[in-house]
Amino acid sequence: MMALAETQKVATGLRPYLPATGTFAAGKDSPRAFLERCLAAIEAAEKQVGAFVHLNVERARADADAASERWRTGQPLSPIDGMPVGIKDIMETEDMPTELGSPLFAGWRSGRDCAAVRALREAGAVILGKTVTTEFAATEPRGTRNPHDLSRTPGGSSSGSAAAVAAGFLPAALGTQVVGSILRPASYCGAFGYKPSLGGINRGGSHDPMSQSCTGIIAASLAECWTVAREIVLRIGGDAGYPGIVGPAAVPAKAPQRLALLRTAGWGKASDAAKAALDAALKRLAAKGVTIVESGAELAAAEAAVAEAQTVTKHIDGWEARWPLNVYRARDASKISKHMLDRLAAAEAMGVEKYREVIARRAEARRIYARLADRADAVVSLAAPGAAPVGLGSTGDGVFNVPASFLGVPALSLPLLAESGLPLGLQLMGFEQRDAEHHAIAGWLARELVA
Amino acid sequence: MMALAETQKVATGLRPYLPATGTFAAGKDSPRAFLERCLAAIEAAEKQVGAFVHLNVERARADADAASERWRTGQPLSPIDGMPVGIKDIMETEDMPTELGSPLFAGWRSGRDCAAVRALREAGAVILGKTVTTEFAATEPRGTRNPHDLSRTPGGSSSGSAAAVAAGFLPAALGTQVVGSILRPASYCGAFGYKPSLGGINRGGSHDPMSQSCTGIIAASLAECWTVAREIVLRIGGDAGYPGIVGPAAVPAKAPQRLALLRTAGWGKASDAAKAALDAALKRLAAKGVTIVESGAELAAAEAAVAEAQTVTKHIDGWEARWPLNVYRARDASKISKHMLDRLAAAEAMGVEKYREVIARRAEARRIYARLADRADAVVSLAAPGAAPVGLGSTGDGVFNVPASFLGVPALSLPLLAESGLPLGLQLMGFEQRDAEHHAIAGWLARELVA
Repeated sequence: MMALAETQKVATGLRPYLPATGTFAAGKDSPRAFLERCLAAIEAAEKQVGAFVHLNVERARADADAASERWRTGQPLSPIDGMPVGIKDIMETEDMPTELGSPLFAGWRSGRDCAAVRALREAGAVILGKTVTTEFAATEPRGTRNPHDLSRTPGGSSSGSAAAVAAGFLPAALGTQVVGSILRPASYCGAFGYKPSLGGINRGGSHDPMSQSCTGIIAASLAECWTVAREIVLRIGGDAGYPGIVGPAAVPAKAPQRLALLRTAGWGKASDAAKAALDAALKRLAAKGVTIVESGAELAAAEAAVAEAQTVTKHIDGWEARWPLNVYRARDASKISKHMLDRLAAAEAMGVEKYREVIARRAEARRIYARLADRADAVVSLAAPGAAPVGLGSTGDGVFNVPASFLGVPALSLPLLAESGLPLGLQLMGFEQRDAEHHAIAGWLARELVA
Repeated sequence: MMALAETQKVATGLRPYLPATGTFAAGKDSPRAFLERCLAAIEAAEKQVGAFVHLNVERARADADAASERWRTGQPLSPIDGMPVGIKDIMETEDMPTELGSPLFAGWRSGRDCAAVRALREAGAVILGKTVTTEFAATEPRGTRNPHDLSRTPGGSSSGSAAAVAAGFLPAALGTQVVGSILRPASYCGAFGYKPSLGGINRGGSHDPMSQSCTGIIAASLAECWTVAREIVLRIGGDAGYPGIVGPAAVPAKAPQRLALLRTAGWGKASDAAKAALDAALKRLAAKGVTIVESGAELAAAEAAVAEAQTVTKHIDGWEARWPLNVYRARDASKISKHMLDRLAAAEAMGVEKYREVIARRAEARRIYARLADRADAVVSLAAPGAAPVGLGSTGDGVFNVPASFLGVPALSLPLLAESGLPLGLQLMGFEQRDAEHHAIAGWLARELVA
């Protein structure tokens, strides 16, 4: 990691791709030109941000040229044909190493594209690079900086994906979340983050096999989150046995009648400024006719059901990560962080009976939360306790994000709040397998709270 | 493959390990001596049978010696400490190649043990070799012969695991089943075959990610099926999100009150001799006081629910295998069988909407079948339409096995029937996540029908 530059911030700004496609047929713009703008941004700031582990500029240019020609002749493969996309480095790519944020995998090449990358290529997307992940998508940071303030973490574990989108390096990047690894970095970096319903996007070839883990999208717009996810699912589906996210090509915005405020166990950790920012946003929504549900038996039950979500998730994830971590430890324990070795030891002390107990608790929590759908169209909270913390030694606290992961429901971080001039996400949670409805409400919120 | 030997049969005979362990402490026998008997059987007949892709005799001897010392000092790691086990060659092993029955993976080494192998080693088991699988655990055979008649198929896709157990090369071997890949070869080879409930044994590092695929056991006794499965699950659990099989160290035999006869779509394909053998067995059970349920609304509904199981499963498996097959085809299509390429092309023509439709049909079939538990303690049928067919060009028809795979319920093939002097399995199906109860009834059947 290079020394911190004198300036504490690089140029930030989201760089959406979908609006640009309208000009591709006329030849005023092209995927290749778009890619070159991304590359210029990378050239200007990547040394300070450290979002990428690997870039394949040569192939990206060739693929962007092919996409440019398809748009020019009116034959794009999909709405995202030519879109530069970054891939979290726990997902396999045929042309680049997959290092899992671990020295054990330095230079490792599987030689194949994971399912989501394969589908993206079939849709014409340009796979520009691999983005930094914490070690095995857990907690050990790998040095990426927050473009909004280089002294702060971008969050994790999808650190590079969020930082790259925030810095305008890319319009979209894939991430994964088992606790808060998409929504927290999206919140800290001021990007849109989308974790789908359980099983929403095929995880084949992504090294996060845990039962509540999901592949998701960090992007420059809500429409890009939806479109990238949908184009993948059309071509390769969700996880085996799941329907995958379902919905139309474009989701029209729809006003909710009722939004429930779920404070969760994180509320006590949230900064006063963050709580005030959310409160102000909810007041604006109320003024537009939305009923904010802050009490009632179903909400209280849902609050209680997720109160221990962080602890229970720790047990679930720990047990499920025993393998292959135990195999990797046997290979070379010196290349695994102390934190990860401690976690493995705890999981080994746990036993399968305890695992059965915690997954049963999770199943019960899901049944309880589902009843909240009778009282609210969606659920709002903060996407993080506050703005990104100073320091690169930790990627922050996922306490606000773990409920949606635990419950298997869709969740979005919308960059609609701020704390001291730094980004902060409004978190919107939906109901399982109702992702399109969730995006419709998010679209309305994003429009009304910005306007 | 060598030319067919003059004799059409090799020495067969199941070689159970658990009874031998009683003599290990006294020093009259040892895991090392047991292993040497296995190696002698392999030496005598492996060239004709072709059950293995790879053997690691050196490590097996070292591991058996270590186990011998543990038994001698009264400190075995588990009841299966020292048991020689074979591993279907779609499951990763740190010390041997994993070739997936495909020329594309010739010599490929992942360098890590899959979850089940890691757990077996922790339990002290001796991983002796990798057993032959059809290409990608699908249908293209790889030359293994049936020890009971070398002109016949051993079945597939777990061809080598079943043949090795039947020939007394091993007391147990791991297999996998998504249609009929454990029970059919077990039936053809006269071994015990166990496919657990959905998610029953952790599939990490096994290359069969389909939603109804399971890791299971082919073994020399019912107790060995149970014990090997249980010892794995104690150490690494079931699939992420599943409880894994649950039950006591030894399952006491228990007489069923009622057994339902589920004829399934395979009935019309069964030989007269096979049907007569099953009929005679059911008459014996009836004489012992078991009610054989052959009619009723719940049974008729269950029959109807699985009538299309083979076709629906073909759609489900096809879609779920698109990735990574599409990636492998892009790498080198000349190394993939025509059958597999055709299957991939059909899946690519299918679309995610059709997939959603077929998994919804499967979910409905599971709900309907579950109601049969009110009318019967377990379900009996044939494990194959008859004895193993002549010829090595096909591994036979899984029509009798697909319902249990489709329904996600535990199933056993018990070597209690025969056709023309060749083995034939009685299939016992249970109810989801009730594997111990299922084994209890199987234990009673195995005792009463042999006695």
